Amino acid sequence: DPNLKVFTLNSNPALAAEIAKVIGVELGKCSVTRFSDGEIQINIEESIRGCDVFIIQSTSSPVNEHLMELLIMIDALKRASAKSIGIVMPYYGYARQDRKARAREPITAKLAANLLETAGATRVITLDLHAPQIQGFFDIPIDHLMGVPILSQYFSKKDLSGDIVVVSPDHGGVTRARKMAERLKAPIAIIDKRRPRPNVAEVMNIVGNIEGKTAILIDDIIDTAGTITLAANALVENGAAEVYACCTHAVLSGPAIERIENSKIKELVVTNSIALSEEKKASKKIKELSVAELLGEAIIRVHEEQSVSILFD
Amino acid sequence: DPNLKVFTLNSNPALAAEIAKVIGVELGKCSVTRFSDGEIQINIEESIRGCDVFIIQSTSSPVNEHLMELLIMIDALKRASAKSIGIVMPYYGYARQDRKARAREPITAKLAANLLETAGATRVITLDLHAPQIQGFFDIPIDHLMGVPILSQYFSKKDLSGDIVVVSPDHGGVTRARKMAERLKAPIAIIDKRRPRPNVAEVMNIVGNIEGKTAILIDDIIDTAGTITLAANALVENGAAEVYACCTHAVLSGPAIERIENSKIKELVVTNSIALSEEKKASKKIKELSVAELLGEAIIRVHEEQSVSILFD
Ligand SMILES: Nc1ncnc2c1ncn2[C@@H]1O[C@H](COP(=O)(O)O)[C@@H](O)[C@H]1O
Ligand SMILES: Nc1ncnc2c1ncn2[C@@H]1O[C@H](COP(=O)(O)O)[C@@H](O)[C@H]1O
Repeated sequence: DPNLKVFTLNSNPALAAEIAKVIGVELGKCSVTRFSDGEIQINIEESIRGCDVFIIQSTSSPVNEHLMELLIMIDALKRASAKSIGIVMPYYGYARQDRKARAREPITAKLAANLLETAGATRVITLDLHAPQIQGFFDIPIDHLMGVPILSQYFSKKDLSGDIVVVSPDHGGVTRARKMAERLKAPIAIIDKRRPRPNVAEVMNIVGNIEGKTAILIDDIIDTAGTITLAANALVENGAAEVYACCTHAVLSGPAIERIENSKIKELVVTNSIALSEEKKASKKIKELSVAELLGEAIIRVHEEQSVSILFD
Repeated sequence: DPNLKVFTLNSNPALAAEIAKVIGVELGKCSVTRFSDGEIQINIEESIRGCDVFIIQSTSSPVNEHLMELLIMIDALKRASAKSIGIVMPYYGYARQDRKARAREPITAKLAANLLETAGATRVITLDLHAPQIQGFFDIPIDHLMGVPILSQYFSKKDLSGDIVVVSPDHGGVTRARKMAERLKAPIAIIDKRRPRPNVAEVMNIVGNIEGKTAILIDDIIDTAGTITLAANALVENGAAEVYACCTHAVLSGPAIERIENSKIKELVVTNSIALSEEKKASKKIKELSVAELLGEAIIRVHEEQSVSILFD
């Protein structure tokens, strides 16, 4: 369909190439570079007039650069008369700033939603929002996809020895752990921890039976990996036979890789919602799964809806 | 006045401290740092409920970081019930992306204005916009200040030998050169140049009499310094006795300092609308003037208006 255009910015070019293949299109021609002073320069090198355009961009680190690239690209597409502008954000940055936890805090996840709409986005496709409430921060249609099926499928195909238990590293993640447990027909357990300050985690106590079992820790985001590695070590200390960990969004900032290497985690399974650096890819414990099919199919579905809706316009 | 609060972000803390002194207030307490993954974390450490708040921030390099700091700070202040949120942007980044010069270009200067209003800014104070039309990109009141008086005063106090001529390095800057020339009671000249591509400049030909005179080149922004240094050298080759250069916004990216050092420019006079790095400050040719009084007085004026308007509300 010549009215469907898919562009990539600088956060996930490899994933975008995979998605284009799934859909069966070439990536749109554009260059996203910097002027000498660091300002973003975008050149869209083909006509997109009247097209349904999708932009693939995670607002992963460097988050402010990636978010501004996205906003400026939306502006350029809008002014170039795109019919619709769908933003495909495999990872939605600032999602943890989703409420006023303390007085006078910003709600940056909502700000980002407002900025994207102001720039001219007409549709959002995203994956495992840190809080599903962020869907309500948008006044435009949003498709919220889930990584659990992809992660579950990997573990069910893998020949894990013995009984499995799916473990949530905190109370907030129990729903997600239950979803994976259902797919793996396994019970769940929960780590009851307290976190003294951001990016620092402390494990307290395990709720559920993990004795002699193969534990699979699941989280949405692994950032500094404090929570997950302490959880893994606590599981082993408390009698788990082996510990795997998985997450959708591999932020892996600061000491994350070192912590994972030095932890009892046997393998960390992540998706490519955030592009891994070569250095991170070299870590032997990390296994990367692709969300290209999931996202590609969502784009096709949305584009079909948009084409159909013309009939009713 | 306890209802007037002035905050600084990370672009110009030294200028903000000066401005606070001019106004006679302490800077508001807040911390603007980064989480481990690079996301901006803002903590406003005092109540601002019902206050007229001003935020000092240039969207200078790193422009995307500085713009996002500003947007997130506005969001936090809005949610903390500020009565008004004035943004003091001595340098307005992305101002050169102010029109579609080619097909499918973004108009990032307009996008930035929309983003600032969406976040919740209620007033803008800025200095020497690259195009005065950018004022019209805002639907909120904007005060547009000029650096020419400060730059002119410096040169009129300096005992320059011989006749002065004020020179515009291109056609776009003639109005600015005329304003300075009026203040210095001097004639003007214009460099008639052609620029083959961005950040590259070529000098052509001088319109006006510069023979044996002290030339003062004036521009709004000096970025890579290609234009200004070629202009200076052309002036000397064509018989100018000495060449000074000045600008409001010292972007000075890439090869700028080296070019200036190696040029015929005797002194480059700039303002602190953009904070100079220590390295740039160390350059012997650069003289920095302060815009603190100009901006401080504008803040006082705006705040007085805002207080007066209460009487009519
Ligand atoms: N990028 C970040 N890195 C670490 N902590 C964050 C980040 N963004 C927000 N937070 C904090 O994380 C908390 C929310 O996380 P959660 O309780 O898991 O929803 C809030 O208290 C935020 O202050
Ligand atoms: N940060 C920047 N550095 C260099 N050139 C730029 C920058 N932003 C925009 N431009 C280009 O500068 C031109 C506008 O400059 P001017 O003609 O001086 O108004 C446009 O063609 C832009 O593509």
